[in-house]
Amino acid sequence: MVVRRRRRTRGPTVNEFDLVLPAAVDIREVGMRDGLQLEAPVPLDAKLEMLEALVATGVRRIEATSFVSPRAVPALADADAVAAELSRWGDVHWSALVANPRGAVRAVDAGVADLEYVVSASDGHSRANAGRSTAEALGAVPEIAGLAHGAGGSLEVVIATAWDCPFDGRTPIGRTVDVARAAVTAGADQLCLGDTIGTTVPLRVVLLLDAVRRACPGTPVGVHFHDTRGTGQANALAAVQAGVTQLDSSVGGLGGCPFAPGASGNIATEELVYLLEESGVRTGLDLDAVLAAARVTEHAVGHELPSSLYRAGGRSVPRGDAVVGSTS
Amino acid sequence: MVVRRRRRTRGPTVNEFDLVLPAAVDIREVGMRDGLQLEAPVPLDAKLEMLEALVATGVRRIEATSFVSPRAVPALADADAVAAELSRWGDVHWSALVANPRGAVRAVDAGVADLEYVVSASDGHSRANAGRSTAEALGAVPEIAGLAHGAGGSLEVVIATAWDCPFDGRTPIGRTVDVARAAVTAGADQLCLGDTIGTTVPLRVVLLLDAVRRACPGTPVGVHFHDTRGTGQANALAAVQAGVTQLDSSVGGLGGCPFAPGASGNIATEELVYLLEESGVRTGLDLDAVLAAARVTEHAVGHELPSSLYRAGGRSVPRGDAVVGSTS
Repeated sequence: MVVRRRRRTRGPTVNEFDLVLPAAVDIREVGMRDGLQLEAPVPLDAKLEMLEALVATGVRRIEATSFVSPRAVPALADADAVAAELSRWGDVHWSALVANPRGAVRAVDAGVADLEYVVSASDGHSRANAGRSTAEALGAVPEIAGLAHGAGGSLEVVIATAWDCPFDGRTPIGRTVDVARAAVTAGADQLCLGDTIGTTVPLRVVLLLDAVRRACPGTPVGVHFHDTRGTGQANALAAVQAGVTQLDSSVGGLGGCPFAPGASGNIATEELVYLLEESGVRTGLDLDAVLAAARVTEHAVGHELPSSLYRAGGRSVPRGDAVVGSTS
Repeated sequence: MVVRRRRRTRGPTVNEFDLVLPAAVDIREVGMRDGLQLEAPVPLDAKLEMLEALVATGVRRIEATSFVSPRAVPALADADAVAAELSRWGDVHWSALVANPRGAVRAVDAGVADLEYVVSASDGHSRANAGRSTAEALGAVPEIAGLAHGAGGSLEVVIATAWDCPFDGRTPIGRTVDVARAAVTAGADQLCLGDTIGTTVPLRVVLLLDAVRRACPGTPVGVHFHDTRGTGQANALAAVQAGVTQLDSSVGGLGGCPFAPGASGNIATEELVYLLEESGVRTGLDLDAVLAAARVTEHAVGHELPSSLYRAGGRSVPRGDAVVGSTS
């Protein structure tokens, strides 16, 4: 879908526009991993109900779990048990996050060979999140890539704090580009830029995407946005306009820190699907099925989900909205 | 601020981008009117504290109140009292909404000559909201415009349900264009397109803007978005890319219907300011001052505001976000 129209007159304001959108995008559902990782542990049965509902949405990429320390992330301590169930759903591309080669061995042994590995672009976050510097985290890429490739899979390096770090402040573009280049050189098949703390904005999205893609020609680059400051969907729009077709999102917007009430988590899958599908961009997901999955998810985690669309009841229009004086 | 880069290669996906943004926009704060109209009445003193805080943000356009029936909108029954206080703040362009010529007379008598008047593009919403058809509502434009102009002011026609109606469904573009053209012919100096129920998406934003602006050359066209389905800021981004520089927003995102828990209201001023300023677009507003105004507003209305940015504590990064395993 391309909307392009050049206006003839130019004045002090910009009065031309280009809204260039791809025909289709490929959403990755991360609710099972990034969404659940900070929640109280959800029983396996409830996770399988979530997975069943997510598969029914039509999404073709699902991050199923994370093979990390059960002490660090007790909510995902059942990664092996979850992985053992995935074969019941055939038509989905499953992936899992790993924190080190040991996790990669676990994942591959459990039958998940498409791996994600997080490298924080900032040392501050890298040390807090993974107990090592960015350079040290990059040092594990060859081994993890080798494990994935040896099992017939692939490795995506997710660059956390790609735009900003809660410890080190703004991440220089050159630093994120260096991490991207190093990751690809070390064996990453794909990259994902993570706005870990939900601070980036559309201009910074397109500037970083451009720099990373020029540094890593031929490597697919996806995006992972959080909606902490209300900019997540606008950032997704900017990324899609920049030609990105691989986007992470989480059913119901799950992923907010339970210790920071009101802080939103990942961008909500249903909001992304609504925004894109209604703008003529195919996602392959059925909005009503995503909302149904959100209901299952809400039941599983036992608290309200942050997604505005979900709370508004979906695409349908609440009639009561109009019965007031002077609305606009 | 213009970011434009053409990529040389073209594949099956769009791999070029244009993010064209204006150098500056002109935000109108509507929290005092659209934000408060459905709230329990706020005492005049608290409203004046809100106004003081809003003026301190640097915003230069504030919709101060609405001269409508106190029975229909008890929260704004004190319009005359509010208007009587506005002269204490000199450097602000004040406006007020009116529902009919009688309201316009009241506004002008109270010293507010820049008026907004809502015409719903759909008959269903027009009848529910104003008790008359779209055509009947348009019929009052000449008289209201005459009153505004006679007092040295201006008239902006806000086209409600410009994209969708809770009663009539999707509003055909041609219908909204016809209303726009009729409003301008009848004396409107300016137009504003209202996504009354928060259903539109970026593609529909730019398509309608283009059609209305071509039908009404020379007439400024602003936008009024609600964030009910998480698309408000993305719609604002699309509108700004389309060259729109006049945007409505509400401090704290105030404006959700209190009878629909969880439904967000207008796009939040602080989120719009954050998104635009960090993208290099000047708004003239100070983010910290907007957050301070949100605190005053939250106190005045006595309940939590929907703005994610406000709830996240502003631009600053919560350190706790990072102290978990495997975040991305």
